[in-house]
Amino acid sequence: MELHFMGTGAGMPSKERNVTSICLNMNEERGTMWMFDCGEGTQHQILRTSLKLGRLEKLFITHLHGDHLYGLPGVLTSRSNHGAETHLDLYGPAGLRAFVETALRVSEAFLGYTYTIHEVEEGVVFEDEQVRVLATKLEHRIESFGYRIEEKEKPGRLCHEKLKALGIPPGPQYAQIKRGEDITLTDGSRLKSADFLEAPIPGRQVVILGDTRVLNKTIAFSKNADVLVHEATFGQEREALARKYYHATAAQAAHIASEAKAATLILTHISSRYQHGEEQTLLKEAKEQFENTHLARDFWYFSIPRKTASHS
Amino acid sequence: MELHFMGTGAGMPSKERNVTSICLNMNEERGTMWMFDCGEGTQHQILRTSLKLGRLEKLFITHLHGDHLYGLPGVLTSRSNHGAETHLDLYGPAGLRAFVETALRVSEAFLGYTYTIHEVEEGVVFEDEQVRVLATKLEHRIESFGYRIEEKEKPGRLCHEKLKALGIPPGPQYAQIKRGEDITLTDGSRLKSADFLEAPIPGRQVVILGDTRVLNKTIAFSKNADVLVHEATFGQEREALARKYYHATAAQAAHIASEAKAATLILTHISSRYQHGEEQTLLKEAKEQFENTHLARDFWYFSIPRKTASHS
Repeated sequence: MELHFMGTGAGMPSKERNVTSICLNMNEERGTMWMFDCGEGTQHQILRTSLKLGRLEKLFITHLHGDHLYGLPGVLTSRSNHGAETHLDLYGPAGLRAFVETALRVSEAFLGYTYTIHEVEEGVVFEDEQVRVLATKLEHRIESFGYRIEEKEKPGRLCHEKLKALGIPPGPQYAQIKRGEDITLTDGSRLKSADFLEAPIPGRQVVILGDTRVLNKTIAFSKNADVLVHEATFGQEREALARKYYHATAAQAAHIASEAKAATLILTHISSRYQHGEEQTLLKEAKEQFENTHLARDFWYFSIPRKTASHS
Repeated sequence: MELHFMGTGAGMPSKERNVTSICLNMNEERGTMWMFDCGEGTQHQILRTSLKLGRLEKLFITHLHGDHLYGLPGVLTSRSNHGAETHLDLYGPAGLRAFVETALRVSEAFLGYTYTIHEVEEGVVFEDEQVRVLATKLEHRIESFGYRIEEKEKPGRLCHEKLKALGIPPGPQYAQIKRGEDITLTDGSRLKSADFLEAPIPGRQVVILGDTRVLNKTIAFSKNADVLVHEATFGQEREALARKYYHATAAQAAHIASEAKAATLILTHISSRYQHGEEQTLLKEAKEQFENTHLARDFWYFSIPRKTASHS
């Protein structure tokens, strides 16, 4: 599980930073990649990485401002041109369907795969055996969502050595115990699964927020996140401007990360006002409140550490 | 008058060539720039040139395939963000309005300038005192247009020396003669404007065709063009493929240029099959039929020579 930052700027592309897009590579976990936001030029950025559009399984849009959206028709059509045939799910605010369908219709784009558009509300927007995704509304000029990707807990390691000591040979019974099922031996005695499993391995929690003013409810939404990706359009000296334009400062993002007891904070959506090293001021301001902060750059990626068994 | 090539590839962006966009810089002539097609990433390319979106006066779309269209919402909004306040005219096939209006509506984009969308048919699509633009339908999978930009003839140089020899001092009468008006002197004698003007200076003719199969009618449409910009998606070895996909080969483009007696041919819309020098084969195949051929690259530009007075 890695977060790959394709675009880390705000509003308009600059020579230093493209407009917003983040890929959550889950190649090891699911064999796929998810994308969050898709500003213009996202497919161009991806061309310069080892990521593959064909692997794209889900695409979440936080809000419909152009710098988070206008790269979407190009990603959809190029994914098809690259030969992808697997289904694609799109999630985003109301209006996403009209945008996508109009763009594909007028350009007479034929996609070689099926897709579903989910116009989301707050709550669970996707769930399977492995992952759950929650959405929450933020405070921006336009409807904007944050997404929380919750990897589910996995069963702990099977204690082969204990089973072998009881004279039980490796076989289907091992799988039953691993799945959490109790088993009955030929002598009629019962073995409890829990006695032969180590503590479960907790899932990772990744929170990616769209553009927003600093917002108290995001503390609960980001609770104990392994990674919180928060916008930091401005520095502290422009706190009033941030409020006026429904954006946040780096220090405000750090406050949320600290209150939420997140493990790592990543700042992105940096205004082009901060160039040539000036963006280090934003990082410094955040670190004063939350030490484990990174400031994303285009093409930078962050590996989200695997968790170990919890013994709580 | 220069043609600046922002994107010279076909279908999808590659590392070598972006998708199609051409700027016709008329800064000297009109103080403005026109654009032909606007594939995704056009605004990113412009960032790397001295061209300014604020100068953009007219934007022509040849056809609505994504590689000619998907950069348009970004150009429109960034033009506004750059502070442009002058009116913008958009020209293109039916469907252009739905695409632009839907993209701007869902993203709640506020433009700081007015714009008009002209869904074009064949014939004159724009005319003022300086320039006329004609459109013709091409043969592609989707409705596709070619545009001919005709700079109008300018009056010839005023023969100051002849007027001075007659004892007429520089003044308003010089301007009258320059405008083509005959004048009456104080002694009652008449001077014919034509006797004091050199031959008129012909305007330049620029033809930019959208994607098309080789098409005989484009010979007349490109007649005596100073520059013909023609797609050359494929080389001669893929002539059947070109026909199947409604595209042209470099040699076919050269045939049109030769028959039309164009002065210069520029090949663009080069398939990404031709990379790392392979595209030189396309240029060679064209030059066999039409020597004065250029193969465009991203960021390359071509200055269209000013004409001298015609003495026909």
